Amino acid sequence: MSEKTRLGNFFEDFRVAQTIAHATPRTVTAGDVALYTAVTGSRFAVTSADTFAQTLGFPRAPVDDLLAFNMIFGKTVPDISLNAVANLGYASGRFGCPLYPGDTLTADSTVIGLKENSDGKTGIVYVRSRGVNQHGEVALDYCRWVMVRKRDVASPAPEAVVPELPAAVAAGDLIVPERLTTAEYSVVLSGSRDLWDDYQAGERIDHVDGMTIEESEHMMITRLYQNTARVHFNQQAEKAGRFGRRLVYGGYIISLARSLSFNGLANAFHVAAINGGRHVAPAFAGDTVYAWSEVIDKFALPGRSDLGALRLRSVATKDQPCAGFPYKTVDGRYDPGVLLDFDYTVLMPRRQ
Amino acid sequence: MSEKTRLGNFFEDFRVAQTIAHATPRTVTAGDVALYTAVTGSRFAVTSADTFAQTLGFPRAPVDDLLAFNMIFGKTVPDISLNAVANLGYASGRFGCPLYPGDTLTADSTVIGLKENSDGKTGIVYVRSRGVNQHGEVALDYCRWVMVRKRDVASPAPEAVVPELPAAVAAGDLIVPERLTTAEYSVVLSGSRDLWDDYQAGERIDHVDGMTIEESEHMMITRLYQNTARVHFNQQAEKAGRFGRRLVYGGYIISLARSLSFNGLANAFHVAAINGGRHVAPAFAGDTVYAWSEVIDKFALPGRSDLGALRLRSVATKDQPCAGFPYKTVDGRYDPGVLLDFDYTVLMPRRQ
Amino acid sequence: MSEKTRLGNFFEDFRVAQTIAHATPRTVTAGDVALYTAVTGSRFAVTSADTFAQTLGFPRAPVDDLLAFNMIFGKTVPDISLNAVANLGYASGRFGCPLYPGDTLTADSTVIGLKENSDGKTGIVYVRSRGVNQHGEVALDYCRWVMVRKRDVASPAPEAVVPELPAAVAAGDLIVPERLTTAEYSVVLSGSRDLWDDYQAGERIDHVDGMTIEESEHMMITRLYQNTARVHFNQQAEKAGRFGRRLVYGGYIISLARSLSFNGLANAFHVAAINGGRHVAPAFAGDTVYAWSEVIDKFALPGRSDLGALRLRSVATKDQPCAGFPYKTVDGRYDPGVLLDFDYTVLMPRRQ
Repeated sequence: MSEKTRLGNFFEDFRVAQTIAHATPRTVTAGDVALYTAVTGSRFAVTSADTFAQTLGFPRAPVDDLLAFNMIFGKTVPDISLNAVANLGYASGRFGCPLYPGDTLTADSTVIGLKENSDGKTGIVYVRSRGVNQHGEVALDYCRWVMVRKRDVASPAPEAVVPELPAAVAAGDLIVPERLTTAEYSVVLSGSRDLWDDYQAGERIDHVDGMTIEESEHMMITRLYQNTARVHFNQQAEKAGRFGRRLVYGGYIISLARSLSFNGLANAFHVAAINGGRHVAPAFAGDTVYAWSEVIDKFALPGRSDLGALRLRSVATKDQPCAGFPYKTVDGRYDPGVLLDFDYTVLMPRRQ
Repeated sequence: MSEKTRLGNFFEDFRVAQTIAHATPRTVTAGDVALYTAVTGSRFAVTSADTFAQTLGFPRAPVDDLLAFNMIFGKTVPDISLNAVANLGYASGRFGCPLYPGDTLTADSTVIGLKENSDGKTGIVYVRSRGVNQHGEVALDYCRWVMVRKRDVASPAPEAVVPELPAAVAAGDLIVPERLTTAEYSVVLSGSRDLWDDYQAGERIDHVDGMTIEESEHMMITRLYQNTARVHFNQQAEKAGRFGRRLVYGGYIISLARSLSFNGLANAFHVAAINGGRHVAPAFAGDTVYAWSEVIDKFALPGRSDLGALRLRSVATKDQPCAGFPYKTVDGRYDPGVLLDFDYTVLMPRRQ
Repeated sequence: MSEKTRLGNFFEDFRVAQTIAHATPRTVTAGDVALYTAVTGSRFAVTSADTFAQTLGFPRAPVDDLLAFNMIFGKTVPDISLNAVANLGYASGRFGCPLYPGDTLTADSTVIGLKENSDGKTGIVYVRSRGVNQHGEVALDYCRWVMVRKRDVASPAPEAVVPELPAAVAAGDLIVPERLTTAEYSVVLSGSRDLWDDYQAGERIDHVDGMTIEESEHMMITRLYQNTARVHFNQQAEKAGRFGRRLVYGGYIISLARSLSFNGLANAFHVAAINGGRHVAPAFAGDTVYAWSEVIDKFALPGRSDLGALRLRSVATKDQPCAGFPYKTVDGRYDPGVLLDFDYTVLMPRRQ
């Protein structure tokens, strides 16, 4: 094999405090937005229409927050997770400046923790990744941790460093996009009259609809993100692999859960934070994805009487409608139908 | 189920003269146009190239008329047809201002008729729907009628109101886009030397080519329109349904018929009216769609010696090439291969 | 069949020196670029990010060279190869002005050779095709030859004219885009530190990754190019055909090979020439495509100390990883796994 071919980093290639600048900056365009809509079915008015976004104070429709997340995630894959066995979790994700078509994202990651597993074959790599626009403004930074193979089981274990990560991004740390105003916000055009005031902690919402995944769709959206993880694309290799088939990229499941959540959360116009997230089970083409959400918490935003925040848990399932809110069984394990357990914070207009 | 989840309107929710403003305004972009081309194979020069459109007097390439139709239709689904059993017909559709990438569509519908069916379980809802751009100009208004389930069979029947709908939009009512000129029109670049003068009423044209539909394609284009009808997306639910599989959105069949019609009608650069239309049979992934057209009528346009109109019937079939023009059998029923019977009016340059 | 339906040219319709202006000019957009990325997985920084392209002296990100190639190829199909039995080869292809989103391509072809086959049923048509932007600048011209059916086996054979085509485009004939500068070129953002200086003639590179093709993807990208060759779209007809299934458009395989080649050739930022190419075997949905490349030659460019050229052979295979560089067997025939043998010249920054 030529030494010019990159095979990704192994566990022993990472050092705590090391920063990796990722390749292939990416100008996000109206073409990306159209594909995102076509593959996820997203219907939030603020990302769908310039006119609606302008009533909120945006110069034009920003790009869906999870499209931004997935683009930035994609940049990190060749350096961070090409040799990952599992994508274990997310925490402390904070969205910053809005992203608009025409903006260019560049990403970097800093290693914030390392811990070899007891089997000596793999280790956990914790990174904080950032996506930055062409003006140097941070669009998103977030932590994730992945289990990465060692190149050589004989390599010595590094000193274990496990970062302390908050359970959730604090209200005061949420970034509210500049110049937002809800005075002209239309609940007719947004698709729901339910505003922040109408949600209560503990409330659960079944998002009703189900979406069946096809191979083309998950591969197209994953390639759109320039995510190069091999398990998503190579049926010949995966046929002989653990599942016998291509794995659906987890970020697509997050996007589907968010898009399905429109039915019940139509006014959650902005994802401000990713508090945590776990891909509980793998998804495959042919699976039908459903979702439900629980309001974990609701809180006011400092200095804003017009906007509030909801901390949500959105759960995506496969082949299991969510009228019964499937989550965990009595022994504390996830229900076998659960794909995703996603904890995030959204902004929503308050009743004036 | 949370009361925040919207389950769509049932028959008893509609009132004659009621107007419903639909949610999720939509900025149409070059990304939407690219996906439309990728999924339908459209080749009309005016929507394909800014330069060609400019020779006709457009500032740049307008969006395909049927992409506009489908976007507007999509907006209406959550309010009008989420609980529809069948999409019965179209009439009196008139295209107004051209739509360009960057324009934002908002849609509303007015109920123009209601008639409960004799079984007491369903009723027919007639609506006139409009799509309006960000300047308040009407891009399209059209009527359709759908059979909608009642929430409760015990609900009393409303007074029956059945609108009178014209067989076709009259020549004088067609809207010719402003500033159109055909002086520079190139029949080389358009792909055909056959102009309005060359078509005769009664003439039939086999469009020859066949296009096989895949699940990904019909779901992607239907989501692009933000059409939320469940029968298109949820294989788990449809497996137990009437057909055992996902149904292809009828508007995709209309677009395929129009795109296939390029071969024989390449100079039909603009759809000016939808006179009527009927989805005769359901389509599914795996079906190969063919089309043929008949010139029902041809007529001059008031005050225009450079443009004429053709009223066309385009018939789409499944798994049945159209050299024999399959349509109806001797007993007046549709040939079992027919999917779509679509009656519309196009504009075409005249020989100068 | 209506005389208005076009069925394409047959062998006896071509004349040496005849020029055919192709229909349907095409404005290339950000939507096309997004679809190209989604379907091929291309990751070259110059076509991915405006900011990166600007460091090289481009006003913004140009369109991928092979997207331009495929768009121009698509225009030629209805006139040149609708009745082709086989697409035999490419030669003498030279990329000219960069293509940007918003530019409009128009294409024409000149017949440069004709030779009837000894069976009297088919003949070889040689054309030089050009794609020109809205300013009349040539974006690409290239030769290809196809085997085309005769309409009537009794038609007399034309005088045989076989053009002499060079083995490769000479270094002095390569067009370097104007105002290119590599002073700010970032090997971090480009994804590789290997520059022109680091490659040697004879060197072979396995691009490692494999990509499984689906029906939706190859049909969508082929329709995006408005390529109307029937073998790609009509499963009903192909079921009864030579292979029993739809054939994948060869240009998609070229694009996949180029996209896969990023891993090992990330700094090959521009395809300057197509020296030759042959579709060795047909590809179908379900095939997993791999690629490897050999450096055939490397040469300096007249007057440039900052850029060099590499002449490459990229070989795409199906269901065969390329660690062993599969190419030809001892008897000189292609290995049965080989799909594509593509000879082209790329530009790459030199170490300063």
